[in-house]
Amino acid sequence: MKYEIQCIICKKNQEEQELRCNNCGNLFAVFFEDYFDKKDIRNERSMWRYAKMFPWIKTNNIVTLGEGGTPLIKDGNNISFKLEYVSPTGSFKDRGTAMMFSSIIQDLKNKKIKRITEDSSGNAGASISAYSAYLKLECNIYAPETVSGAKAKQIELIGSTLIKVKGSRDKLMKAAEDAASGNTFYASHIFNPFFAEGTRTLAYEISDQLNWNIPDYIFLPCSAGTMLLGVIKGFRQMFNSNIIPKMPTIIATQTEQVSPLYHEFHGKKYTPLKSITSVADALTSVNPPRLKEMENLIKINKGNVEIASEKEIIENYKILSKKGFHCEPSSAVAYSGFKKWVKANKINSDDKVVIVLSGSGLKSTLP
Amino acid sequence: MKYEIQCIICKKNQEEQELRCNNCGNLFAVFFEDYFDKKDIRNERSMWRYAKMFPWIKTNNIVTLGEGGTPLIKDGNNISFKLEYVSPTGSFKDRGTAMMFSSIIQDLKNKKIKRITEDSSGNAGASISAYSAYLKLECNIYAPETVSGAKAKQIELIGSTLIKVKGSRDKLMKAAEDAASGNTFYASHIFNPFFAEGTRTLAYEISDQLNWNIPDYIFLPCSAGTMLLGVIKGFRQMFNSNIIPKMPTIIATQTEQVSPLYHEFHGKKYTPLKSITSVADALTSVNPPRLKEMENLIKINKGNVEIASEKEIIENYKILSKKGFHCEPSSAVAYSGFKKWVKANKINSDDKVVIVLSGSGLKSTLP
Repeated sequence: MKYEIQCIICKKNQEEQELRCNNCGNLFAVFFEDYFDKKDIRNERSMWRYAKMFPWIKTNNIVTLGEGGTPLIKDGNNISFKLEYVSPTGSFKDRGTAMMFSSIIQDLKNKKIKRITEDSSGNAGASISAYSAYLKLECNIYAPETVSGAKAKQIELIGSTLIKVKGSRDKLMKAAEDAASGNTFYASHIFNPFFAEGTRTLAYEISDQLNWNIPDYIFLPCSAGTMLLGVIKGFRQMFNSNIIPKMPTIIATQTEQVSPLYHEFHGKKYTPLKSITSVADALTSVNPPRLKEMENLIKINKGNVEIASEKEIIENYKILSKKGFHCEPSSAVAYSGFKKWVKANKINSDDKVVIVLSGSGLKSTLP
Repeated sequence: MKYEIQCIICKKNQEEQELRCNNCGNLFAVFFEDYFDKKDIRNERSMWRYAKMFPWIKTNNIVTLGEGGTPLIKDGNNISFKLEYVSPTGSFKDRGTAMMFSSIIQDLKNKKIKRITEDSSGNAGASISAYSAYLKLECNIYAPETVSGAKAKQIELIGSTLIKVKGSRDKLMKAAEDAASGNTFYASHIFNPFFAEGTRTLAYEISDQLNWNIPDYIFLPCSAGTMLLGVIKGFRQMFNSNIIPKMPTIIATQTEQVSPLYHEFHGKKYTPLKSITSVADALTSVNPPRLKEMENLIKINKGNVEIASEKEIIENYKILSKKGFHCEPSSAVAYSGFKKWVKANKINSDDKVVIVLSGSGLKSTLP
């Protein structure tokens, strides 16, 4: 199975963990041959069940805390929830982190890297903190001045240093990037092309758990795109390999406040609020670097984008909890999108739907 | 595979979900034929991989949120952590709850039960709340007056009612028990004999994940005994069925403040403090109803009991977090016991050890 790490626009090959293409300034992604064979599935419970679909992974290099293999639980006949919060650090981000570190671990060792930097004080930051700790690497997390809550507490307990930065999300990113030199490595969940590859396993798992009878619709929360990109690529790969009979319709969901993809997709202008106050505090990318990549993949694969209001998110967060699915409010954005589509009769009662619940309710900031 | 639900002392068979033996006042447990065949293992990721080892379970009655199948992660060559916090409600209790409800669901339906009562405001309460919610049953949790923290918040978000009761732990238990009549059922994680059966799957999983090369030592936290009893019975069953070559040495660990089993096992008198202030707030059973059952099983199987001080627990909680294992302080009690045994040279450097991390650090009350 061949693969290349190339600039998503000019297709130049990546050199030496290059962050942005030095030819055209765009980001890198992994491009691979569409090949999927069920015989390559390993007898494993974690996401490494599908390790052979990642040709650059050497199994003795795998860095794992047991991510993936999350429950897919029915709610009625045709609706299932994928409980991504049942994960080592409580969110789907562990798939990306484990894939990123497993992909670059030899390079980190060769370069004698001792310190990781990252610019998320949310689920990605908590996840990268835990895996860095497991690898005995220091970890500095660049965070907004106002950082607080369960995720920040989790990051600090794991022993990472929270470095508070004044200014925009882009400034945080720059601070984390600028800190990387010598034995310090910027392990960005957005720039590193391997991170979003990890969530391909989410697509494989859903299909595998449904015995390859894939759902008609998948609703998932979307911010920087690490889940969306991997899930689409995973399903596409299975479809092109004749493993599944069709592509599911993948619906990315966003909050009204943070909805750049929704606006882009529907040809509307997006002007973010000065201050983001949504309860869906895992969905904060007002200017996601991989926006165009997301839009393209959704359009090619006939997906869609929906938004949810604060009222809908809070209401559906409570409904999910009271069904026994104690996820974080950001996960309720996906459920809100689903309910909107049901209400608008865009989904039939016999359509099969999977809704991805991305993070743990134990991290919720809601009272 | 034959089984009986009998009084642990006079061996009378249980009648109609009898709570205490109406002959001698003691508790009931499940007694089963020691039979384990690897061929009976199902192709499943959850604990229901081992459903056939529970002969009363009908697979179409299984109540599951995807519990079990938790990661077993190495920390160095010979030490592994079993991450029981990677579970639908964040603790190993989900195994017990799922087993209990799967065992009694038909009976609950026949009796038109609409409401569950339980007397834990901790992990068991959170777990029973979530599964009740999933089953669309109301749930009333009897809790101490001072109840607070992440677990209480979790219970309330799931929609259970917290009913505050003045007085001792025994008074809570009585209140939950007294409330059960008509369409209200007392689903006690301590009295119900099926609950501790669920943690048998923890023993199976550890063995299965180690390819049946079982560890020399297993350290686990112990309060009411729901983990300890199941784990011992599971290993015993595999040993008696010639699936594993020996019994691992199972070490129950407790806090200095709440150590009735430690005292009983070592022939010392235990006088609990008036007020329990341990950071290990999942380990609060000063007077566990199944104390004698635990002591007997540990003695027969050549296990042991260790205790840890507050200082050790807090220190080891921080050490675990900084290794990337963000568990709750109660889990650090097991790790503290392990470290004491290493220091006392009771464990050799080539001994294989599994330490069970029982609950999520996201529920921790420590700052």
